[in-house]
Parts: sequence; structure tokens; C-alpha cells
Amino acid sequence: MQLPKPVYKPKFMITRASHVVSRVRNLEASRAFYCDLLGLVVSDENATTLWLRGLEEACHHSVVLKLGEPAVERVGMRVLTEEDLDLLQAHFAAAGFPTRWVEVAYQGRTLHTTDPAGTPLEFCATMQTRARLFAHADRYHGACVLRLDHFQVVTQKVRESLEFYNGMGFRLSEYVVSNGNLDMIFLQRKGNPHDIVFANSRGPRLHHCAFQVPETHHLMDVCDLFVVGDKQGQVEFGPARHFSPGLARFLYLRDPDGHRIELFPSHYHTVDIEDKPIEWKVPEFKIGGWTVPPDRWWNDTMSFAETAS
Amino acid sequence: MQLPKPVYKPKFMITRASHVVSRVRNLEASRAFYCDLLGLVVSDENATTLWLRGLEEACHHSVVLKLGEPAVERVGMRVLTEEDLDLLQAHFAAAGFPTRWVEVAYQGRTLHTTDPAGTPLEFCATMQTRARLFAHADRYHGACVLRLDHFQVVTQKVRESLEFYNGMGFRLSEYVVSNGNLDMIFLQRKGNPHDIVFANSRGPRLHHCAFQVPETHHLMDVCDLFVVGDKQGQVEFGPARHFSPGLARFLYLRDPDGHRIELFPSHYHTVDIEDKPIEWKVPEFKIGGWTVPPDRWWNDTMSFAETAS
Amino acid sequence: MQLPKPVYKPKFMITRASHVVSRVRNLEASRAFYCDLLGLVVSDENATTLWLRGLEEACHHSVVLKLGEPAVERVGMRVLTEEDLDLLQAHFAAAGFPTRWVEVAYQGRTLHTTDPAGTPLEFCATMQTRARLFAHADRYHGACVLRLDHFQVVTQKVRESLEFYNGMGFRLSEYVVSNGNLDMIFLQRKGNPHDIVFANSRGPRLHHCAFQVPETHHLMDVCDLFVVGDKQGQVEFGPARHFSPGLARFLYLRDPDGHRIELFPSHYHTVDIEDKPIEWKVPEFKIGGWTVPPDRWWNDTMSFAETAS
Amino acid sequence: MQLPKPVYKPKFMITRASHVVSRVRNLEASRAFYCDLLGLVVSDENATTLWLRGLEEACHHSVVLKLGEPAVERVGMRVLTEEDLDLLQAHFAAAGFPTRWVEVAYQGRTLHTTDPAGTPLEFCATMQTRARLFAHADRYHGACVLRLDHFQVVTQKVRESLEFYNGMGFRLSEYVVSNGNLDMIFLQRKGNPHDIVFANSRGPRLHHCAFQVPETHHLMDVCDLFVVGDKQGQVEFGPARHFSPGLARFLYLRDPDGHRIELFPSHYHTVDIEDKPIEWKVPEFKIGGWTVPPDRWWNDTMSFAETAS
Repeated sequence: MQLPKPVYKPKFMITRASHVVSRVRNLEASRAFYCDLLGLVVSDENATTLWLRGLEEACHHSVVLKLGEPAVERVGMRVLTEEDLDLLQAHFAAAGFPTRWVEVAYQGRTLHTTDPAGTPLEFCATMQTRARLFAHADRYHGACVLRLDHFQVVTQKVRESLEFYNGMGFRLSEYVVSNGNLDMIFLQRKGNPHDIVFANSRGPRLHHCAFQVPETHHLMDVCDLFVVGDKQGQVEFGPARHFSPGLARFLYLRDPDGHRIELFPSHYHTVDIEDKPIEWKVPEFKIGGWTVPPDRWWNDTMSFAETAS
Repeated sequence: MQLPKPVYKPKFMITRASHVVSRVRNLEASRAFYCDLLGLVVSDENATTLWLRGLEEACHHSVVLKLGEPAVERVGMRVLTEEDLDLLQAHFAAAGFPTRWVEVAYQGRTLHTTDPAGTPLEFCATMQTRARLFAHADRYHGACVLRLDHFQVVTQKVRESLEFYNGMGFRLSEYVVSNGNLDMIFLQRKGNPHDIVFANSRGPRLHHCAFQVPETHHLMDVCDLFVVGDKQGQVEFGPARHFSPGLARFLYLRDPDGHRIELFPSHYHTVDIEDKPIEWKVPEFKIGGWTVPPDRWWNDTMSFAETAS
Repeated sequence: MQLPKPVYKPKFMITRASHVVSRVRNLEASRAFYCDLLGLVVSDENATTLWLRGLEEACHHSVVLKLGEPAVERVGMRVLTEEDLDLLQAHFAAAGFPTRWVEVAYQGRTLHTTDPAGTPLEFCATMQTRARLFAHADRYHGACVLRLDHFQVVTQKVRESLEFYNGMGFRLSEYVVSNGNLDMIFLQRKGNPHDIVFANSRGPRLHHCAFQVPETHHLMDVCDLFVVGDKQGQVEFGPARHFSPGLARFLYLRDPDGHRIELFPSHYHTVDIEDKPIEWKVPEFKIGGWTVPPDRWWNDTMSFAETAS
Repeated sequence: MQLPKPVYKPKFMITRASHVVSRVRNLEASRAFYCDLLGLVVSDENATTLWLRGLEEACHHSVVLKLGEPAVERVGMRVLTEEDLDLLQAHFAAAGFPTRWVEVAYQGRTLHTTDPAGTPLEFCATMQTRARLFAHADRYHGACVLRLDHFQVVTQKVRESLEFYNGMGFRLSEYVVSNGNLDMIFLQRKGNPHDIVFANSRGPRLHHCAFQVPETHHLMDVCDLFVVGDKQGQVEFGPARHFSPGLARFLYLRDPDGHRIELFPSHYHTVDIEDKPIEWKVPEFKIGGWTVPPDRWWNDTMSFAETAS
């Protein structure tokens, strides 16, 4: 498989997957899912919006839930500095994508744009901060979500996405080849296997948003809570382990509006330039290891608000 | 549901489920499964037999594997004293069951008999001992099996089994009712929910033999080992949790010959006479909690050697 | 070391260590310790008393806390039936110990008496029940205490205690010899290493009361909570592991009034008559394994209310 | 406390703490410690040297052990590209530090130099790779060390070290102030709290080298192994948790030659520029949380080979 040459010194520094903005029908049902069961904490709230963060996060929010018809508004990423934000804006504009400066609550200067797949993106350099609760054991409950880790988008423009993100300094950590074509790409900026993943299917739609939890037992603990709360139908796949891309133990859940959430307890680091991308071929795939994803895990995805109309 | 009156002071003291004697086609394949993956240790072996025990067991063996066509020879239970053994022999003989005194390697005086379901049983009061490895952290590996806990037999004589075992001082901890009939009974002597379980299906056949492991993560750890060893097909059901009888987290595996093994990390104690049996009705069953057993978990069972001919 | 002959068929059936009745200065401070931090649940309460049970316990209470000057009122044990209670009363009376029938809230007929060490004891056959919360994952928090396991009493009458308890069918699981004398004895009825332990020191006083928690991480989790609550001084010893009697991982805590609580995640079973008592000699002792108990763990013990005057 | 202005866009990209080169008296004793107990794997070896890596590391080595009088030869860091290495060489030379290009087995072009504290440093951009064993559950044993994380150096030049490392783009994550002076600084490049720490004491000497393990139970598991192997004296401090800098659960061990190793299961991420350094003042220090470091943890440190003469 021909792969683009890595860009080690991009013109601007995107640093990490940062937050997701989603629409949900009922904020109290969402709060029960994200806070009571997943363990995220409320940084702020009003009548139409919840801003949530994980237990180790100092940033104001990694999940923003707005009242509305279920859809994903945007996935958010961080750049390092305000200067990077300007360079990024110029880059997207030069590439022919619409860019728009917007005011976003609790965030610094924010840019809205899209990528070749049509993913609605939001970039900023800064956000308000709140106390890190990493060592506040009294605030840990449910799955004890620590932080947002990555997104997975489905699109038929996987190759174009690879070229575009690679050009901005994203590193390809793993990829899947099917019949000689790129089927999935795992792209990272923060030194673990992924910040954003693109998988081949009609899109752009969001497959899932992934969060780190502390330990393996938290995957089992939170499943117990779903059953006790008579919500076992929201446990979609796992706990099990991927023995193909990602290689992590996982649990996939569905929130009350159908947004898919992945929880996982650990990931490997990949920083050095000699870390070559791992190639997987479809027949040797071991998603789930000793178990098999249900059909809905493959097929159900969430529309993006701006493309859903 | 009409239940028999508990017998708190039986004439003889059966103390616990003790061991299983099974036939397997290949001792090295079985050793790889039971020792390398499950973590049992070899107490003794010869060309045709492996005697295994769990890491906390002082008794010489809880699993005996003999070369032969796959089948279960016997399930073994302990009585407290030699005197209990004689009283038990008299009881089974008076009830019309064949009884036979046999010589069994590493065991004291041993009685062979059967129960109303036709389960081939073996009773003894003593066994040779080996060092307990409970605190020998250097011997822990794989699933780190600590000890044998219970058996599940399928039979259409569930009611008869309840009457018979109840009469010998077994306590009913939980039971399942289906259309007004007894569908499953969980019977115990050692103070946790079960030593032997009978489930309604054509039998007598063995559904599974269960072992305790230390902690939840061991259920996930051993699944990883099955996949790494390209044996993921032997992981049948779980890790998950029962929210009906037993109430424990579990993992069901199949050994190389199809014998089903359950691993679980913890169980509640039930000793006091005010602990009434828990009744479950079929529609409220939550076997597996957030997941569902595969068909083969319901339907595949192992024949007993003496009844298989 | 000369040991008494085990009594396998005692005249009456004591079944297990059951509950402890303690006096504390402030019920709210005690509730914060036992419920918020240890995870016990309130079965009932009034202005002067809290009745608590562990998450797997069906019995109404395993801990009773009464307003008063800090002391232990009684340690409670269960007999199997009402008939056993009468036989036990006769046995204690014949041995010259005072016996008294008392009314105790939520308990069946209850007997007060003392043993050779002077330990104030309470026996009953039945208690009211409450829902077992074993699988109620939503009720698990803090150390997630599952159930009471055993008591440790200090006395200079270790040999007399062994003879007396052995005569009632208690099995000696382990013992410590120091300069040819019995220094500690571990006695059990329920099939794990101990229901009651006697250690050589001026008494009778209570060293600690032990409870089982689900897994190793709960020992670390609850320590975090003590520090977050600025109560790190109540963490006395551990988490670590005993490599002498008991062989379990442990954590010793002190409640707000100085009552010592041990938490441990697992114990081995010991049921069969070939399980000989394990002898430990003082120099080979490894209490704490890689760590060493502080002086106060050895020396601070709690008075019994009736002997404190 | 006056802190230097962060340098977000340094002239060259140091990426992470990478490896440590230590001298030990007996390679077999060291292999028993690092491989059998800690779980590192051997990438290569010869008669005088062991090259080890953690279970998730693709890089050839994170620990190099050479036969010799116990001392630390160097701590190693990575730069992103060969060009960064040249820029770094120029930077150190311009600052007046000796720089030397050396041949190092299994590494690309390597630079030796020192920092203001006198720490002997080694930088390279590339290293040979070996298979990542992250998902190879069959290779996990002992503490299951995943990867090297950071170093702690003692020096009286803490302020100078801060200025120098800050100038190279290291971010200050946390720091300790004692009587108005900088007592400890935690510096990072890879997005978690530290790659290198400087603490105020006579130096330069190495306090410890830290490695990540998967989960909390691994800290307890490996302590058991030290006791079973009669090496309990090498367990120095923990398992416990820091409630001041780092905020992680930890265990400190001493290798057979006295090199101190920290193991910890998790750390928070810190990437965004609004993540301000956390200031700790000496009296509010909670190193160890509910426990207290032994004197030797404060006072025993390891000499660097080049400064030891």
C-alpha cells in the first residue's frame, strides 16, 4: 500500500482531539447516562446545554450536549497557540474549505470548517479551565471516565482524508486494507494510536467517540450499572479486546439518543519516527478478539447536523 | 411453588463439591488448557492421567483427566468423616441406588453410586494433600483458578433431585420456575449458593463445572490468552454477569474436548436458616445481564461415561 | 505443639461469626466512616443506634453502633437452629459461665454469655432479613464491604480458649508458637481460616473486626478516600499482604473512636478433615510481607464494655 | 514564584524521556529483577550488556544494563528527527556544554552532552525497533512494565535547570516551593506530567527512573512476588498514592544494585497552553498520601558514572 510521506514539522500544531458537540432530546436522560453512569462531571449547564469534562481534564468541556434532534454538531480539536489557529485557517481556506470565526461559550477564538470527508470541525487554542479531579477519589463513580481520546468518522473518502490529515502533521498509526483499498485509517497527533479514525462507509457520519477509563474492571462495573438501571439494551459490544487496530480492551455503549461511546482503559504510546504504521488486512481482522460485533455496531452511525438536512 | 422442608441436621455430613473425573483425547492439549491457561497445577501425572488442583486447594485433586473418548466419568463430593461415608452408603442403598466401594488413587475409601437423575457420583472423606499455593504468587498465571466450586447437571428429574438432595441436607439457595414447573434448582452444602445445580433438559448430562478465580480482571486476562493462542473459539460466553441465579460475574470456556468450564470471581455466603430460597420466573431471567448466551451454551452438554453407552 | 483432638460432630452447631456491637461517641461520624467510606448500608436506625450490614448480607445487621463511651459490647455468633441455642446455653452453663436470655432488636431469641477469656458473647439462631445487595451495583461505593468475616481477641488465656472452642467444634486452621507457647490461634466454623482469633496479650480486649471486600483495588480505593477526606491518620497498616497466618491481602483502619477494622479481599477455604493446622514460629512470621506493622497496631486494642469498669 | 515564560515553539523537538543506561554488578541478578519481576523483555544481550524494553515499546531498549560498578551512565532522550539532533547539538555547544557524537549499539546517530545540573545526557532521533507486545497477553508477567516514563535527578541547581529546560520547550507541569525557593520541578515534553524531574539535594545524582504498569493490582502483585522470592527488602515505599506532585498511585523498588525504580499505573494528560503549572508548598505536601516515605527514600540516590570518580 502506497502511503504518503509523514510530515514531521507541519506549519501549525494541531495537538489533540478535544471535544464533541452533540444534540440530544432530553438533557436529564443524557445527564443520567454521561454523569451518573459514565462518570463525567458537569462544568456548567443551562436550560439547553450541558458542558461536561472527564475526571482528569482541566479543560472546561470535552462533551457538549445541546437540546435538539439527535445529531452530532461538530468534533473539536485543539491547536497549540493562537498563531497556529490563524495558520490553520489559512490552510483550510487555501484548500478550498469554508472557514468561519465563531464565538463559542467557554472557548477562546474558535474556527469552524470542514475536512475532505465533510466532517464539521471546530478548532481552538484555548478554553476555560476547571479543577482537575484526577486524584479526587470522592468524585469517581460509574465508569470513571478520565478524558476524551478520539473520534471515528465514516466516509467513502478515506484516501483523500489520509492525504489531507497527513499534510497537517497527523501520523498514521495503523490502517486496514481490503481488496487493495484503504478501508480504515488511524491518525494521531498526541502520541497514542489515534485522535481521529476514518472508516470506509457512506458518510460523513460519526461512528463513535472514545473515552479513557482507569482500569479493566471499570468496563465490567459500568455494564453492571446499565443492567441494574434496566438499560442493558444500551450495552452494545464488549467488554472484550481488539486484536486488530487499537489493540485495546473496550466497551461500546449507546447513549439515550443513539450516540455511540467507546470506553477503553489503556493505549500504547507512539511518538518516534521509526514507529511505522501497522498494516492490517481484512481477513486477519480480529475486532473483538473472542467475540463478534453485532450488525448494528457496523451499520448504525450518527448523522452530522449540518449535513443531515 | 411447593418446596420441601429443609433438613438442617442430616444423618450424615456431605461437605462440598470436590472434584470431577473427565475423559479427554489428548493429555498435552488438556494440560495446555487447564494448566497454562486456567492456571491449575499438576499434583501428579502418569501416561494416562493428570491430577490437578487449584492454587488454594490443599486436596490432591479437584480435576482428574483420563485418556479416553470425551465424557464425564463422575462428579465427586466430600463427606466429613469415614463414619459419614458409611451412613451415606446405607442411605443410597436403602433408596435403591447401586453402591460400590472402590479404590481410587490418592483418595481414602471411596464410594461410587448414582442419584435420581442418574448422575454418576463419587464420595470420599479424605484425600492426600499437597501444599496450598494460595500465597505463592510465583505460581499464579493464566486465570489463576483457586478451587472447584460447583457442577451443573441437566436432567428431566429436577423435582426428584430436589427431594432427594434436600433429604440429605442440601439447602436450596435459588430456583427457577417456568410455567409453574421447577426448571432449575441450586443446591448447596458449603455455605455459598451452589455445590450442585440441576436444570431441566434431557439427561443426565453435565452442563458445566465451575471454578473460582481471584478477581474480575482474571476473566478478561484469560480471554486475551485464548485469542493470543488462536483459541478464541473456546471462549463461549462472557465475561459478563448473571442477574438471575448465582448473581456472579462469569466466563464460560470449552476445553479441547468440549467440556464446559465456568470461571467466576466471587459469590455470596448463605448459611443462616432465615436465608429463604430466591425464586426466579423465566421471563424475568437475566442470564448474562447485558448479553445473551449463544445457542450452544444452552444445548451442548457432555455425556456421562457410564450412561453414554 | 500438643493440640486438642478436633471435634467433628459437636453437640450443637455454631455456624459463623455474625456481628459486633460497639459503642461510639458520634453516630454521624460513625456513619461517615462505616457507610460512606467502608460501604456498609443502613438496615435501620434510631436516635441512639445504627444497624448496618454488608452488601451481600441478607441478615439485618453485622455491625451495631450504639451511642456511648467507646468500647465493644459484644461479639455475636450464629447457631444453626433454636434447638442448638438451647444446647449451647446448657453447655456454657455447665462449664460455669453465666448465661442470660435477652431481647435484642431485630434478632430471634438471644443468649448472652462469656468464654474463658472473658469475651462478652451473644448467640442467636435467627435475625430479620433485608434484601441482599450483592448484585446491586448501584449500591456499591467506598470499600464496598460485602460481609463480616471474623474477630480477633487478645487474652492471656490462649490455651484455655483453644480447648474450649475446640470442644464446641471450632477447627484450628493456623497457630503461632513463641518460645514453645501458643501465641495465636485461628479458629473457624464456616470453612475459611477464621471466625475468631485469640492472640496472647493482656485482655480480654478486641484487636479488630474483619470484613471482606470484593477485590484488591478496593483496598487502594478506600485509602484514597481517607486522604481526600483528610482522614489519612485512620489508615493504620497496609494495603499489604500477610505471608504468615491468614495469607490474605489486607488493610487495617481505625474508626473515629479507635475501633480497628480489617478489610481483605479473599481467603482460602478449609473444610476437609485432612486440612491440618498450619504452625508458624515467631521468627518466621511475615505479618505485612514487605512492610511492618506500626507499634500501635500491636499495642492499641479496645476494651469490652462489661469488663472495662 | 516567578516562572520563566513557556516556549511553545522550540527550535528543535525533544519528544520524550527514552532510556536509561546503568551499571550493575551481576547481569543474572538484574535480569531476575527487571525481567522476571518487573516484566521487561530482553531485546538483545551479550556477555556484558542487557538491552530491555517494556511490553508496549517498539523501541529496541528503554533500559540498558552494563556490567560494572553500580552507577548510572546516562539518561537518554529522543528528538524527533536527525535535523533536530543537529540543532540540539548546536544549542548545547553554544551554551558551553561539551558535546560528542558517539556510536551506540542499536541506536541511530547519538549525541552525548550534559545539562546545567551535570546530568550525563544522551540524545538520538532513531533506534532499531522490535515487535510491540502490547496485546501479547502471553508475554505479560510480574509487574507487566509497559514503558519508561520519566527520570528524577537531584541537584542544587534547580532554578538553572528550570531555565535551561524551559528554553528547550519543556513545559513545567508542577513545582514545589520551600521557604520561597524552588525545591522540585516537574518538566514534560510528551504530554503527561513529567519526562524529567529535578529535586533540590546535593548532586547530580539519580533518584529514580519511573515506568508505567497497566493497573493498580500490578503494584500489589509484584510486591507479593518480592516476598515470595525473599526479596522483600527491595520493596522500599508503597503501594500508596501521591497527593502532591504527580498525583499517581506508585510503588518504589530497589534493584539488586540499589537503583531505585518507580512503578505507577496512570497519569493525567497535560497538553493545552492554559494548563498552568500546579504550585505545591512544602507543608501541604502529601507524598505517599496515607503513608510516609522511609528515610532512605529521601536520602539514598545513585551516582552518575562520569561524576562519581
